[in-house]
Order: sequence, then structure tokens, then C-alpha cells
Amino acid sequence: MSTENLDARIAELGQAARAAGRVIAASSAAARNQVMRTTANLIRERVDTIVEANSEDVEAVKEHRNDAFIDRLALDESRLEALAVELEHIAELPDLLGRTSDMRDQPNGLKIGRMRVPIGVIGMIYEARPGVTAEAGGLCVKSGNAVILRGGSESYRSNQALAECLQEGLRRASLPSEGVQLLPTTDRAAIDALLKMDEWVDLIIPRGGTELIKRVHDQTHIPILKHLHGVCHVYIDDAADRDQAIRIAVNAKTQRYGVCNAMETLLVAESRAEELLPVLGDAYVEHGVEIRGCPRTCKLLEKAVPAAEDDWSEEYLSPILSVRVVAGLDDAMDHIAKYGSHHTDAIVTTDEERAKRFMREVDSSSVMVNASTRFADGFEYGLGAEIGISTDKLHARGPVGLEGLTSQKFVVYGDGQIRV
Amino acid sequence: MSTENLDARIAELGQAARAAGRVIAASSAAARNQVMRTTANLIRERVDTIVEANSEDVEAVKEHRNDAFIDRLALDESRLEALAVELEHIAELPDLLGRTSDMRDQPNGLKIGRMRVPIGVIGMIYEARPGVTAEAGGLCVKSGNAVILRGGSESYRSNQALAECLQEGLRRASLPSEGVQLLPTTDRAAIDALLKMDEWVDLIIPRGGTELIKRVHDQTHIPILKHLHGVCHVYIDDAADRDQAIRIAVNAKTQRYGVCNAMETLLVAESRAEELLPVLGDAYVEHGVEIRGCPRTCKLLEKAVPAAEDDWSEEYLSPILSVRVVAGLDDAMDHIAKYGSHHTDAIVTTDEERAKRFMREVDSSSVMVNASTRFADGFEYGLGAEIGISTDKLHARGPVGLEGLTSQKFVVYGDGQIRV
Repeated sequence: MSTENLDARIAELGQAARAAGRVIAASSAAARNQVMRTTANLIRERVDTIVEANSEDVEAVKEHRNDAFIDRLALDESRLEALAVELEHIAELPDLLGRTSDMRDQPNGLKIGRMRVPIGVIGMIYEARPGVTAEAGGLCVKSGNAVILRGGSESYRSNQALAECLQEGLRRASLPSEGVQLLPTTDRAAIDALLKMDEWVDLIIPRGGTELIKRVHDQTHIPILKHLHGVCHVYIDDAADRDQAIRIAVNAKTQRYGVCNAMETLLVAESRAEELLPVLGDAYVEHGVEIRGCPRTCKLLEKAVPAAEDDWSEEYLSPILSVRVVAGLDDAMDHIAKYGSHHTDAIVTTDEERAKRFMREVDSSSVMVNASTRFADGFEYGLGAEIGISTDKLHARGPVGLEGLTSQKFVVYGDGQIRV
Repeated sequence: MSTENLDARIAELGQAARAAGRVIAASSAAARNQVMRTTANLIRERVDTIVEANSEDVEAVKEHRNDAFIDRLALDESRLEALAVELEHIAELPDLLGRTSDMRDQPNGLKIGRMRVPIGVIGMIYEARPGVTAEAGGLCVKSGNAVILRGGSESYRSNQALAECLQEGLRRASLPSEGVQLLPTTDRAAIDALLKMDEWVDLIIPRGGTELIKRVHDQTHIPILKHLHGVCHVYIDDAADRDQAIRIAVNAKTQRYGVCNAMETLLVAESRAEELLPVLGDAYVEHGVEIRGCPRTCKLLEKAVPAAEDDWSEEYLSPILSVRVVAGLDDAMDHIAKYGSHHTDAIVTTDEERAKRFMREVDSSSVMVNASTRFADGFEYGLGAEIGISTDKLHARGPVGLEGLTSQKFVVYGDGQIRV
């Protein structure tokens, strides 16, 4: 397709999404929940077709992709069943649309408050895992939005098979199937066209590696909700409980490595370094974690190698940990402000005043006291679902669930008031 | 200054703002309120200096600017006193920082909730009226942010004199004066440099004409909170109370013309057109309002001229009104969806079901039933202050007060929980 034709085609998609979004926004919770349940059943009914489409996707790339990639791409009956259950779970979540809050009576008799409403049309750009098609599509529709999906080109057939289930789910609930649309080509130019559609798209959610996120950020003037990266810290304070400190510092690093909420840098108050670092060092070595330390850490831990300046801002996503001995709370917070990524940071302390300062002053989407950074997650937070984690500072910070897919408008109820 | 030198200079400003923002974010409400009160007193003490700086600004442009422009630019003792009072008023507003909400206990013993925090560094770009320097600067500091201000080049000396009061106010409260900075040159390239500072600026708020807003939008990848334009509607429903309909339709148009929340298009249900349009037409003619109508309106109103297609999306900001007869509620909502600007729209009706549909389905930052659109305003809404009105759909919609200058992060309180 020529760029011009492509732009026109994507604009048609956007316009159709806008129109569908209006209908979905006005629809009842019952209708939207019916979409979730019908789609779940369609995924079950069509399991063979979806697995077949997925096999073609896998077949096409298996020569030049590694096992981890193929594993993320592959769908089988049990993964599809899990997706169906997830959609049924989304149906059970409370509906937020139309809820009013902050209602107050003004002296002139006006009642003024806020009402929760959908955002409108959401553009979702994601990589490999095709399950996102059903999850993100479901969350967008449940929250009253229309969505335009652009999954990884390697999973195009799988995404299409799953999107068709959602589209049929919409139709059977008498809602417009254009509420969920896939970009019609895996051509990268289609993403460029989507990112230019200020008029039809209200929010772009990119989900994937740092390179994808940066590319989207640099190419669009549409608001985006992005998760850049997670350089998470645990700070062991002078007043830390010894057992909690060890438990949390080990768990935050070793429970899983390739996740954004894993600790990448451990900060230890100098008054506790001699006592705690050797114990922690042994635990990390046992887990096969490489330690890159500041000079004082290296003095205390034979196995540590010296950290380079770049280490402090590195998201390892692997069994590597940078460790720094700091003077105390202020030093730790300065370090986090300088090198952190505003994702998730934790303090271990029994001192209430210092905990309070850390919670208030550390500018991250999640701040924790005496808990593992690994808890930064929509399900752990009780949001019921998660479309992503935002490291941005506006609209929604941290794990984003249904609420983050909505906004609030002002509502004013009068009986003929005019301004004088 | 060369572009390179300018970029480096603006980056220095940004870095200083970031550092100052951290200190202000952590400061007590008492300290931030002290800044407001001290600044108010400094404005009073320095009234002669400020008026003198302002006279130079006025002198420099009075040859080639009209009276309305000069009036917006000019400062005198009474306008400065009003600014001082406004800052004292901001000091009285409740502090939002550190407030937690939605706290809940998870089964694993974690307490999880949200805490209200500043956004960080705000870039404010505005035109003519120099009072904005003190108002916006005050609101940003009160809400814990640092701000970089770029006012109209015609008011540079006035802005500088007012910013110096805020900076001295910060110093006297032992807070860094870099919390409020002005771009150091009126060179447009300085705006370009500011708009590129993703690393140091978290939010851009442009305030001014459509051209300025569009330019900012097209040039930056930093999130922006913008007020584009207000094409506001009043829809008189079949079930409208006659007196309310007339009162509101006249007030929304004629109470003030050059404001964004004035009605620009009146929609009338066909069942009421014959009864109401002649009365309304007389009232508008009496106020000197020109009517541009649909064919049916023109049939009912001799004085109406035919509206062109462009009229329906025009923000007149003057005594011109477009009028359309519609079939009913759905037709009215379709018109608003097609031509409106998501600012403020009102329905006049006594029918609860139709009111409910209008409130829910019309996708504007403010929706009203039986009230004049002119009420869409931070002060009328009881926000206590207003830094602008947002026609965007994320973060904050409608009038933006202190809350819109803050965000929420997740806070997690544990006693040693780890993820298993």
C-alpha cells in the first residue's frame, strides 16, 4: 500500500473507532460484561482455529528466533483457557462509568461534581505476546473505550484470530465491532500513520522494550501512557529490622530477574553495611547473582566487582545487582533521585519518621516501606487487572487498571441558574 | 545567544528547577504558604518598581498595539493589590500534598493506597497578561512544583519584576529561588529549547490563542495540559422549562462574549422551535447579536442569515451565534459530537431520563443540565483557584486548580512481606 493510501486507510479505522467508541461509552455495564463473557466462550469454541493461526505464526519465525521468543509467542489450549478466564474475571470487575464523586452544593444552588467517563479511542502498540490482544481489548471495552491494536508483526495471525473473537463478542451484544480493530498490515508505516492521528486517537499505550517506547514517544504528539524502565532500589536504613532487611533484599532481586519491579540496586546505610553485606553477599552468590559494588562494598565483599558509573542507572533484568553503601537516608534519596527511573523504590526501616520522609519524598510511581519491590503489580494492588505500568507522572502512575483507562469530567446540575 | 548556547542555558534552568522542585515537594505546607504571603507583601512593597517596569513594557508597544492589548498588559496599584490578595487566598487553600486515599488492607497484610504528590517541573507558556506570572507561579509552588515561566515578550519587564517577588518569597521561606524561573530571553528559540527538555520538564501548560497552543502541541513530546478552544452548546430539549430555556440561552451567549465558556451554537428541539425562537431572536437582536441559522431557523427568524458549514465549528468569541433546529436529543448529541470542542455543553430539560443521557453521553470537560455554560470556571466550581481550563481528555478535564497540578503515586506499607 502506498503511504497515502495507508494513511487514508488508517484514518478510516480511526474514524470508525471514534464512532464505535461513542456507542460503547453510552452502553450499559451489562452489555459490556456480556462482550467479555461471549468472547471468553468464543475463544473456547474456536480454540482449534486460534491454535492453528498461532502455529502459522510460530512456523514463520522459528528459524530465526530464540526459544524464549517462541515461548512468548506460542498459544495452546491451556493458555487460551487462561485468557478466557481472564475475560470472565474482567466481566466481574465493578463498572466505573457514570460514577459521580466530589458532589457539592454551591451557594447559588448548583450541584457540581465529577463523573467518570471513558477516554475515547486508545491505540495500543505491543510486542510478541498475542494474549495481550484479548486482555487489552477486553479492558478497553469494559472501560467504555474503543481500541486500535497493533501487536507484534510475528503474531499477526494469532492477534487477528483473537481480535475476531472480541469483534464477534461486540456484535452479539449489539455493539459495533469497530470497537476493537487491528491495524490491517504489519507494515511499520501503519504505526507511523496511527501515531499521527491526533484527531481520532486520544491515548497511545506502547508496551514493549525500551526501543519501542522511545520510538513511539519521539514520533507522536498524542498523549501516551508509557512504561519506560524499572531501575528499582531497596534502601536498608540504619534502623532496619535485620530479618526484614535480608528477606526483602534477597526477594526483591532473586524472586524473578526479567521483570521491571525487580531490584536493580541495593543501598545500605553505612552503620549496617558490615553486619548485613556479608550475609546478603552469601545469599546472592548462592542464587548466582553477580554483585557490582561501590568501593566500600567491594572491600566488604570479596566476590563483588567494582561498579562502573553506568551500572547505577542500568536495568539489568538479569542476575546482576549493583550495591552501594550510603551515609544514610538523605544520601540514599539523592542516589535514587539521580539514578532511579521513578518506578518502584523501597525502604527497610523501623524508624517512623524516616519511613515517612522516604514515602513522601521519593518521586516514584510506587514507594514502599518494609516490603519487596516485587509487589508493584496491578493484581497485587487489588486493581483486578492491569493494562500496564506507567512510569509517567501525569494521569496514572504505577500499575494501570480500569480506572487508568477512564477520566473524569465535571457535571453541573441546576434549575435555571445564570451567571450575573 | 547561539542556539547551542541557548539550549545549554535552558538546560541549566531545567536542571536547577528539578533540584528546586525536590526541595519544594518535600517542604511543609507552612513554608509554602509563607511564600504566598511574603510574595503578596513584596508585591505591595514594590508596587512602584513593578508599575515602572510595566510602564516600560507598555511604552515599548503602545504604538503598534490596540487598546484591548494595552489594557491586558497594563498593571496599576489596584491590579497589583488584587494579585497580592489572590496570593493570600492561595495560602488559605488546603494543602493536598501527602494526602493518602483508597487505603486498603490486602490479605497478605500489606496496606496499599495512594498519596498525592507534586508533578515536578512545570513549563508555563502564556501571552500578554503579566498577572499570570504571580498567579501561575503561586499555584505551582503551593502545589509543590517548580515552574519555568515564559510570558509574552511584550510583558517581559513586568513578568521579571513579579517573578522576583516570588523568588524573594521563596528565599525568605528558606526554599530555593530556582523554584520560580523566567526564561532569560524573549527569543522564540528559548521556547523551542524549553519544549525539547523532556528530561527536566514534566508538564507544559500553554495559555493563549489557538495559534500558540497548536504550535506548542506540534513541537513538544512533553505532556501538555491545553485549552484549545470552546465551541459550547446549549440544547433546548422538547421538555425544557420555557423560562429556564430563555434565561439560560440568553445568558450563555450575552453575559460576556470573548470568553471560552460562552455559548457559540444554540440547538433547539423542533417541537419547541416555533414557540421559542422568535422570543430568543428578539432578545439576541436587542443585545446586538448576529444570528446565523439553519434553513428552519432562517424561516422562523427574519433577521437570521444562513449559516455556512464552517459556522458550526466556529468559536466566535463575539456577538455572533449559530442556531440550529434539531429533531431531538440524539440529533443534538450527534451535532455536538461532530462540531463541538469537548469544552462545555448544556441541556435545558425537565425530563430526567434525557438529562441523564446528555450528562453521560456528551463527551465534554463540563456537561450541565439547566445551567448557563458561563459557570464553567474554577472559581464557580469551588476549586479556589484556576491555572487554566483543559480540553484534553487525560489527567485533568475542565477547570484545573491545585489538584490538577498534582498526581498520585502508590504507597505500600508492610512489615517484611516478600513475594512468593
